[in-house]
Amino acid sequence: MKKVGIIMGSDSDLPIVAKAADTLRELGVPFETHVYSAHRTPVEAREFALRAPDNGFGVLIAAAGKAAHLAGAIAANTVLPVIGIPIKSSTLDGLDALLSTVQMPSGIPVATVAIDGAQNAALLAAQIIALEDAQLRDKLLSLRKAASEKVLEKDRLIAQQYCG
Amino acid sequence: MKKVGIIMGSDSDLPIVAKAADTLRELGVPFETHVYSAHRTPVEAREFALRAPDNGFGVLIAAAGKAAHLAGAIAANTVLPVIGIPIKSSTLDGLDALLSTVQMPSGIPVATVAIDGAQNAALLAAQIIALEDAQLRDKLLSLRKAASEKVLEKDRLIAQQYCG
Amino acid sequence: MKKVGIIMGSDSDLPIVAKAADTLRELGVPFETHVYSAHRTPVEAREFALRAPDNGFGVLIAAAGKAAHLAGAIAANTVLPVIGIPIKSSTLDGLDALLSTVQMPSGIPVATVAIDGAQNAALLAAQIIALEDAQLRDKLLSLRKAASEKVLEKDRLIAQQYCG
Amino acid sequence: MKKVGIIMGSDSDLPIVAKAADTLRELGVPFETHVYSAHRTPVEAREFALRAPDNGFGVLIAAAGKAAHLAGAIAANTVLPVIGIPIKSSTLDGLDALLSTVQMPSGIPVATVAIDGAQNAALLAAQIIALEDAQLRDKLLSLRKAASEKVLEKDRLIAQQYCG
Amino acid sequence: MKKVGIIMGSDSDLPIVAKAADTLRELGVPFETHVYSAHRTPVEAREFALRAPDNGFGVLIAAAGKAAHLAGAIAANTVLPVIGIPIKSSTLDGLDALLSTVQMPSGIPVATVAIDGAQNAALLAAQIIALEDAQLRDKLLSLRKAASEKVLEKDRLIAQQYCG
Amino acid sequence: MKKVGIIMGSDSDLPIVAKAADTLRELGVPFETHVYSAHRTPVEAREFALRAPDNGFGVLIAAAGKAAHLAGAIAANTVLPVIGIPIKSSTLDGLDALLSTVQMPSGIPVATVAIDGAQNAALLAAQIIALEDAQLRDKLLSLRKAASEKVLEKDRLIAQQYCG
Amino acid sequence: MKKVGIIMGSDSDLPIVAKAADTLRELGVPFETHVYSAHRTPVEAREFALRAPDNGFGVLIAAAGKAAHLAGAIAANTVLPVIGIPIKSSTLDGLDALLSTVQMPSGIPVATVAIDGAQNAALLAAQIIALEDAQLRDKLLSLRKAASEKVLEKDRLIAQQYCG
Amino acid sequence: MKKVGIIMGSDSDLPIVAKAADTLRELGVPFETHVYSAHRTPVEAREFALRAPDNGFGVLIAAAGKAAHLAGAIAANTVLPVIGIPIKSSTLDGLDALLSTVQMPSGIPVATVAIDGAQNAALLAAQIIALEDAQLRDKLLSLRKAASEKVLEKDRLIAQQYCG
Repeated sequence: MKKVGIIMGSDSDLPIVAKAADTLRELGVPFETHVYSAHRTPVEAREFALRAPDNGFGVLIAAAGKAAHLAGAIAANTVLPVIGIPIKSSTLDGLDALLSTVQMPSGIPVATVAIDGAQNAALLAAQIIALEDAQLRDKLLSLRKAASEKVLEKDRLIAQQYCG
Repeated sequence: MKKVGIIMGSDSDLPIVAKAADTLRELGVPFETHVYSAHRTPVEAREFALRAPDNGFGVLIAAAGKAAHLAGAIAANTVLPVIGIPIKSSTLDGLDALLSTVQMPSGIPVATVAIDGAQNAALLAAQIIALEDAQLRDKLLSLRKAASEKVLEKDRLIAQQYCG
Repeated sequence: MKKVGIIMGSDSDLPIVAKAADTLRELGVPFETHVYSAHRTPVEAREFALRAPDNGFGVLIAAAGKAAHLAGAIAANTVLPVIGIPIKSSTLDGLDALLSTVQMPSGIPVATVAIDGAQNAALLAAQIIALEDAQLRDKLLSLRKAASEKVLEKDRLIAQQYCG
Repeated sequence: MKKVGIIMGSDSDLPIVAKAADTLRELGVPFETHVYSAHRTPVEAREFALRAPDNGFGVLIAAAGKAAHLAGAIAANTVLPVIGIPIKSSTLDGLDALLSTVQMPSGIPVATVAIDGAQNAALLAAQIIALEDAQLRDKLLSLRKAASEKVLEKDRLIAQQYCG
Repeated sequence: MKKVGIIMGSDSDLPIVAKAADTLRELGVPFETHVYSAHRTPVEAREFALRAPDNGFGVLIAAAGKAAHLAGAIAANTVLPVIGIPIKSSTLDGLDALLSTVQMPSGIPVATVAIDGAQNAALLAAQIIALEDAQLRDKLLSLRKAASEKVLEKDRLIAQQYCG
Repeated sequence: MKKVGIIMGSDSDLPIVAKAADTLRELGVPFETHVYSAHRTPVEAREFALRAPDNGFGVLIAAAGKAAHLAGAIAANTVLPVIGIPIKSSTLDGLDALLSTVQMPSGIPVATVAIDGAQNAALLAAQIIALEDAQLRDKLLSLRKAASEKVLEKDRLIAQQYCG
Repeated sequence: MKKVGIIMGSDSDLPIVAKAADTLRELGVPFETHVYSAHRTPVEAREFALRAPDNGFGVLIAAAGKAAHLAGAIAANTVLPVIGIPIKSSTLDGLDALLSTVQMPSGIPVATVAIDGAQNAALLAAQIIALEDAQLRDKLLSLRKAASEKVLEKDRLIAQQYCG
Repeated sequence: MKKVGIIMGSDSDLPIVAKAADTLRELGVPFETHVYSAHRTPVEAREFALRAPDNGFGVLIAAAGKAAHLAGAIAANTVLPVIGIPIKSSTLDGLDALLSTVQMPSGIPVATVAIDGAQNAALLAAQIIALEDAQLRDKLLSLRKAASEKVLEKDRLIAQQYCG
């Protein structure tokens, strides 16, 4: 199975990004996690992106805050699908990272998920890989079913308590 | 090759969404285009999503404006990767559609591109399909190279004219 | 008397939504509370909306955060009046939920109240039901009067203390 | 049948608000239209609201731009359901009117629709009145069905033209 | 000397508004403080505004949060200068109150100060009253001078510590 | 009668600011208009503010766009009441000018009116001057009455045409 | 004298960026203009930045719209001062480009000017170069003086026309 | 070597601004720190700017919150490069200070860094001074290298822990 590469711009993003790793592990999707900064280690970020197809990666996830260039910098150097996670930092509630990640110019798409949406980034990566992997697709469908059942269970509890 | 399904919430989105169709045609990626509204035709939107895998679709693109629920409504009914295009409408410059598309809850990702970013939605869909299609990957790389060369050509023209 | 249906997209919305239940109970308006997610349980959400008139509901309240599609998804499946409560979540201070709830396309209205405005959602539902229930209307007028008197009482206290 | 009262803060709002009148006329819902300003004619606005129940009104619609207080001023003087239409004016794209209309304090709800959403305001009013009027409910369901069919017709046209 | 009337929409605004009272007391400007809500006690708010000139008021200050209509409601009923303080509440960081207070329609101005800017509201009121009161003007100039000296004193302390 | 000083940061603001001059002329309030930039002519702006009381000014109005510092720069140099008009320029719809004008630090208030709200700035200035001028107060009350009557006249016209 | 390098992300930015070239020409500051995209020609953008000191550049100006990464990508590869011009594009009024340019992470500053502020970018570059060039500093001071005189001339014209 | 002047509008900005001082000290760049307010001490702020070149300053840094006029007020009085730090205060998350600092009118640039970006302001100042100081340039390059190495070290740690 192709690997997912998770890259974060700073190790301070780890508390959010770790959820992506957890989700991939839970799904049995192989992955690597790296810290490369578009600004502090532009060469390493670029080389990672360039070599990603040969290194067995199928999808890349990039998480960054503020003027979040990382996903775009990765996407500029590969035609693998790149998923961007805008990270909320100390000001502006993540709006800066969201716009810096999603408003990419024509030609270089970044598949952007919600602010701090690391779990969804992992699921999206898995959905892409699952296009050629029926077993993974089944796991994703099971996850969906479990989430649905959890909602319905909560419904039963709350419906009992809150009525009048 | 798997097909790309393009869905728009209203035919008024067509001027933007047509660029996605053009891009896929140029790349030789098979696609269908549909008009289904999350609110006016929820059943048809849902059924399209449910049947998409069996109908040969590999990636779905959904474009909508304002309280843009379409991509999320599609994503809720399939584990195929779903790409969302927020469409700018008459107020708020597309910010409403962007937030309605990208801020999805955990469990149901939408791969969001820029406001009115139809071309990038098509390229992202193609990049996903190209994971299993070396020829398409080469076409994408050629497009990138052509875009790069066009920039450099503009550079030569402008560099000559604007110096002092 | 017709019932009010309160639906929340996630049980994490309960601390806010409970105020709607409390208000309806206080007014003696019958209600049910449910957890249905537009994305995790789209079928159940839809069916609840479709059957609501036959199940004795007169007004539906839907509360959700982030890309808050729930009220719109309910409204798409019924012509009962649907009231939307945008819920503030961890980023963007509820602006995402507000725009996702209020900016509905022509044809499918959602009666949106303030961010986290659960009490007002309940009052609005009661005001609708009170159109055919003079007793409930009197209760609403009493609540208004009590609120007004509470303001005037605060006025007397503060006017004494803060003058110069 | 109870009447709908449409109030606009200024006759400059008429091009938008006229769509509400058109929609109610199309549905056969009786209505009156008025121009009352929360700031320039506060007494008349207030008196209209106070007398509305005795004058046969069941729902009030209030449209205003900028610091759009009209809906709130009406709502403060009646327990009839009040629907607010935020009107986009020359700056800020209607965000000012939206927040001024929707962010009402606890106790005085305004059922807010989209910026410039006059048609939806009328539909919402009709949905409320239709709670006690099966014929009107059927008209609303027919409108929904017609809107749905129009989407599907557009789908057929566009699906034929845009595929590859 | 004419009095300043301070009105708040809710006693929950008191922690902020108290600074206006403190400032006026410090300046020896006579004032009264009241709690009147534009929505919960519209009659009392209006009557206060109408009678304000006869009751010896020269300037009115109105503080409110969310869809902050209070200053506008007061201003609609008097040609005394009305100063608005937008209060930050639990969502949107006060932007809703700012826009609801400042974006008044032509004809009915509200002199808006910063979000939570109660001290400045009091100073502005005093500056208006000082137009006909040389002694108050001197006090205001002294306050300015004291503020200026405090800055310069901080400058000396910090300039010593932070240099290199 | 004390004069009103109108200052604009650039002659490009004149189309908006001229409405303030027109309003004052209509009210018979003496005024001067000037172009001083907080950034291009800081000395002249400052000197104008410092000498304003001795030159017979009672209220100052300052209009500027973008990082609109003019009102603040004037206010920093006088204890006359200073009214700020945020001017909408080519980007951000006037939000930059609004925040730059209204969010003043404690100690130096600016009485901010709506974006491009030149007429209200003039009315506010006149309301301040009218505190000591019963004739001007009567003119202001007449203007209010005329505005009110104009609304009611529009009401009659529209009420006839738009009903059903 | 050291040269200024002007880089734009796309030739569509030229109408704005040309003003920077005009200003530098007027000041006699040598400059080159280039088109390099952070995403379409990342290698060329990087190499330009790396070689800039050896190629005689002292300051670099980078202009880009949307997810404007260009200035940051240049800044990541040089310790020359880098000035960023956020370009307004078809949506969001330049806010996306502003946040993407200014919100740089610690370690890699970008000196950001106003949205579409090409002239100021050129002036800032000249001010930096003028630190070691008294003649250029005199030119800058003359420009300031001329701008100041132009304001005062406008003041005389407008002060005559607009008074009462 | 030319000095850097750091100015803050209030001593409450010190916790942020101190990082600029620390960074300059670490780089061996001489600096002074001052507290001058554009509004409370406009004369001192202006005089500091006017005398800065004669007092040995080469670059000025100005930090302020809310309607952050300080950097613009400094820039209006010198052609030294002026760097602005928008400071986040109690509301609006620093957006007010950002727009007040960056949206300067043509003719008077302010080199704006991120909200609370004091370290980057110092680095930018150092980069400007380093244009004529090879040793400082080397220090800046070393800092960059150290930052880069720190990222790569974090990469190694995290890459080991987070893979699957």
